[in-house]
Amino acid sequence: MTVTFDDILTARDRIAGQVDRTPTRHSRRLSQLTGAEVWVKFDNLHFTGSFKERGALNRLLQLTPEERKRGVVAASAGNHAQALAYHGGRLGVPVTIVMPEGTPFVKADGTRAHGATVVIKGLDFTGSTEEAHRLRDEHGYVFVSAFDDMGIVAGQGVCGLEIMEDAPELDVLIIPVGGGGLIAGSAIAAKGMKPSLRVFGVEAEMYPSFTARRNGQPPRCGGQTIAEGIAIKAVGEIPFALADPLVEDLLVVDDADFEKGVAFLATLEKTVVEGAGAGGLAALLAYPERFRGQRVGIVLTGGNIDARMLAVVLNRELVREKKMVVYRILGDDRPGMLSKMSAVIGGAGGNIIDVVHNRLALDVPAKGAEFDIMVETRGADHADEIRQGLQDAGYALRMG
Amino acid sequence: MTVTFDDILTARDRIAGQVDRTPTRHSRRLSQLTGAEVWVKFDNLHFTGSFKERGALNRLLQLTPEERKRGVVAASAGNHAQALAYHGGRLGVPVTIVMPEGTPFVKADGTRAHGATVVIKGLDFTGSTEEAHRLRDEHGYVFVSAFDDMGIVAGQGVCGLEIMEDAPELDVLIIPVGGGGLIAGSAIAAKGMKPSLRVFGVEAEMYPSFTARRNGQPPRCGGQTIAEGIAIKAVGEIPFALADPLVEDLLVVDDADFEKGVAFLATLEKTVVEGAGAGGLAALLAYPERFRGQRVGIVLTGGNIDARMLAVVLNRELVREKKMVVYRILGDDRPGMLSKMSAVIGGAGGNIIDVVHNRLALDVPAKGAEFDIMVETRGADHADEIRQGLQDAGYALRMG
Repeated sequence: MTVTFDDILTARDRIAGQVDRTPTRHSRRLSQLTGAEVWVKFDNLHFTGSFKERGALNRLLQLTPEERKRGVVAASAGNHAQALAYHGGRLGVPVTIVMPEGTPFVKADGTRAHGATVVIKGLDFTGSTEEAHRLRDEHGYVFVSAFDDMGIVAGQGVCGLEIMEDAPELDVLIIPVGGGGLIAGSAIAAKGMKPSLRVFGVEAEMYPSFTARRNGQPPRCGGQTIAEGIAIKAVGEIPFALADPLVEDLLVVDDADFEKGVAFLATLEKTVVEGAGAGGLAALLAYPERFRGQRVGIVLTGGNIDARMLAVVLNRELVREKKMVVYRILGDDRPGMLSKMSAVIGGAGGNIIDVVHNRLALDVPAKGAEFDIMVETRGADHADEIRQGLQDAGYALRMG
Repeated sequence: MTVTFDDILTARDRIAGQVDRTPTRHSRRLSQLTGAEVWVKFDNLHFTGSFKERGALNRLLQLTPEERKRGVVAASAGNHAQALAYHGGRLGVPVTIVMPEGTPFVKADGTRAHGATVVIKGLDFTGSTEEAHRLRDEHGYVFVSAFDDMGIVAGQGVCGLEIMEDAPELDVLIIPVGGGGLIAGSAIAAKGMKPSLRVFGVEAEMYPSFTARRNGQPPRCGGQTIAEGIAIKAVGEIPFALADPLVEDLLVVDDADFEKGVAFLATLEKTVVEGAGAGGLAALLAYPERFRGQRVGIVLTGGNIDARMLAVVLNRELVREKKMVVYRILGDDRPGMLSKMSAVIGGAGGNIIDVVHNRLALDVPAKGAEFDIMVETRGADHADEIRQGLQDAGYALRMG
């Protein structure tokens, strides 16, 4: 029970022409940002918005004629569901997807739009998987794991072939790890082409299941991470067995770095990724000294981020860089107060975005008022200048 | 005084290897959205984030040795400034950029970071241009217009060569029009390669200067548009003379369609563009019947949008699609009121994002309260369901 380099070559031929060949580009901007020489593989540009298509299609194309007729079932609320639904629809294979209760409707609707049947069942991924197994047993569907399946792993490996074809000079490949299908396949493929290549995995701090498994510890996973695409409580058996000997190290990254990765990819690289899709850049931001000067390939694994979440992440990055700052000022509750403060801020080049008055806090005098003034600045130094200008003008600033 | 197809071929050879060759890709998502067969040219992926590099570099490489030593001057707060500063810096040509007073500091800083001298002078673009002319006369700099210059037009024409090389099947090319440099050069190049190609321009409703010129009317331009990259009060003399015989029609598009274009390019195409950069898609959204079923190329001319503006546009699109809705409810100002309303909304699958209480409006009874409840929904139908659910539960909804 293994996946070989030849299996991945076969998978490539099998899926050729039915999945987009995504581009790989050297990024000067990200190289400047991180100190590494960065190549980017744009798997967020797949039709269903993630790398999952190669694996799903390869697995579907390995079904027997009878299996094709009966159909497949999977548990997923995410990119695997979309990929399987889309390619199943194209090939005329009936697809049933089980999603946990509470799954955003937009995900169910998106999957139905590709012609799949969506069943909402189970409190979480484990519960949905149980239901998927039950449907397999009841209807004779083939259960297609998102990662714990040799056909899936071989399909994902084609990503590794493509990136090494397009950027053979790479020293390092950094791949996000959820169930492990992508890193297993890509490591087999890429090291098959270039044995000296070093492969690293990225895990979200809340879901370090590959790391735990490697260290012989029980996985302690949980919590709401922006990298929900790799928020998997247990790495797959097959991917772990295949990837563990090939992966040099796992890089555990916290949510702030995933957020920064999403924001920088939008502002510097002009591309939209979901949280997990920013994993490679997040790792470079978290561990810059480990990759400085090296030729590093990162895979933008997916671009399926809600518009609202993307907007939130962009705004949070502005706050992080002090390009958006709230000054809390204690003042007199008198006419003209705001006008004078605004003049100080505007004169220093700050752009006022929002003002909130707070008159009910008990640590504010009854005749006073507290103002929260949100200001757009040029960055940390400028924010400090504005703060200093307000203090010089005699205003009492509260908090840091 | 003209620009020929051969001039553009020469420009291509002159700048080769010094400007990125940006990709052109067929977009299934945008084709589904618009009903046309859409190819996208990603000029937002240039190092300085816009198409302006080809023209600026071509012009710089045409300077005499003495001109190179004395340097160049331009008036621009935008992409032309960045492109000229970057390539001037690379080539060792001194670059002075005049920007109007009130230009965001981030733009001045970005231009300085490439080694240019930035002068803040003039109340608007006209005033800055006067100052640039004065500096030309005083220091012997070469004035480089952003568009009204044959070297610039020839350089921009290389964009047209590239898109027709990569997508020779195109029937139509749609190009944003500000000063007209890109459409003039691209029309000469693209129709030189394929005479049957039809070229359309896109203008912002607030700045339809090419349209006015063509109709023999004085331009009536002004206002704050999100497409500030093409907010030019008068199309250039040279570009107009060259483009007018080649352009089939001008498509005037309002700000809402530019905003939609930016939002759809982020959510469907996973790419970040500035307002003007979304012009091609905006035109397809505004005039779908004119291009249905045709093979249409659009150029994403630039990606330099502020992170905060991108976040605003994404959120405004959610409001437009009723995926974010504010319900204004008149209720009793009693304990438990909000809990019951929330239960109705949550039970219908709506996700409450923000609640604002308004007790001071005089059309609210003294013992009542008005609630503005912002809710995330699945779209217009779902928003109506939630509204109906609130009404069925006896709540008084105000406004549409």
